[in-house]
Amino acid sequence: MDLYFSPLACSMATRIAFYEADAAARFVEVDPKIKRTRDGADYYAINPLGLVPAIRTDDGEVMTENAAILQYVADCFPGADLAPTSGMGRARLQQWLCFIGTELHKGLFMPLLDPKAPEAGKTYTQDKGASRLAYLDRYLAGRDYLLDRFSVADAYLFTVLNWSTATGVDLARWPAVKDYYTRMRQRPSIAKALAEERALYVQQQARHKAA
Amino acid sequence: MDLYFSPLACSMATRIAFYEADAAARFVEVDPKIKRTRDGADYYAINPLGLVPAIRTDDGEVMTENAAILQYVADCFPGADLAPTSGMGRARLQQWLCFIGTELHKGLFMPLLDPKAPEAGKTYTQDKGASRLAYLDRYLAGRDYLLDRFSVADAYLFTVLNWSTATGVDLARWPAVKDYYTRMRQRPSIAKALAEERALYVQQQARHKAA
Repeated sequence: MDLYFSPLACSMATRIAFYEADAAARFVEVDPKIKRTRDGADYYAINPLGLVPAIRTDDGEVMTENAAILQYVADCFPGADLAPTSGMGRARLQQWLCFIGTELHKGLFMPLLDPKAPEAGKTYTQDKGASRLAYLDRYLAGRDYLLDRFSVADAYLFTVLNWSTATGVDLARWPAVKDYYTRMRQRPSIAKALAEERALYVQQQARHKAA
Repeated sequence: MDLYFSPLACSMATRIAFYEADAAARFVEVDPKIKRTRDGADYYAINPLGLVPAIRTDDGEVMTENAAILQYVADCFPGADLAPTSGMGRARLQQWLCFIGTELHKGLFMPLLDPKAPEAGKTYTQDKGASRLAYLDRYLAGRDYLLDRFSVADAYLFTVLNWSTATGVDLARWPAVKDYYTRMRQRPSIAKALAEERALYVQQQARHKAA
């Protein structure tokens, strides 16, 4: 399977899932600024929206959208137990994937990360996002994971919380969230993904500066 | 099952799903301004985020987040065939639910609908949203539905496109999207849900004015 990713973008959640499953994958880096892969191919030809992640399955099908990709990858490697397979467990997984995707990723962090987003909107975004993080904080208090064990929802939540420093969102205001983030960062699959993508991010920034 | 809804909000997609399945449900109206049900109960006690939809299942479990609820309801009524049950079909359903939820609902329409969102951000939001609607337009050209038959993703897409008039998003710029919206509006389940929720919306606005 191919994973189209950009360093430290939300595609890192899928890399974490691959590492959790100890599964082979080809990682294809996309420059988010010029929308090209490292070998110069036009990424819009893969995903017309220009967004990562996308995967190309072993059958050659391209799939987009994080919540769908994470569930697909989890289902490909059932031995890794990265997602409940059915019933209320699966429904709760989808609830968290949707919450992270809509309230945190798109609602809070994306407007703060996007350099084209107007400054005037940022206070509004942070205030609204604070209520979402407070909700998450109450939920995570006394829990190790979003579900009863590690799942792709944790891979996604860690990945978006990892944007807090760059966006000035101080997780210390929500102690259970901060504690969760700190614990997750030590998980081997996450530590490995983070170290690798940080190094790639530094290289990407250097290329942008040189261009 | 109970559906907590506000008239014409994204919870309408779940009402449409119930009508498609010809399934009984109790519809509990929530005032989005005061976050109370019509009989005065505190809605934050149901969903601490104050957002609709929420459902209370027949087992008494409360579930939130539209993409999760729509899949749960579809799975409760398999005879209505509102969602592929597995494999790539289900993955594509999740892809569309995620696209609608993140790119259209949260990315485009929510900042335009929210009276607290700053005016300065609205041009940015509309420009970004236009690229998403252009992508959808290319996809829908020559298709009847998002998947190969009507699914809960169509119920959700219709519901968010229905906010276009109130937000000044002129669907005529994307003819296949406009045509899809017009066709869907004539579908019996949707026509019934829309007529009922419009009437409830008018009553809600009258109550707000009188308060």
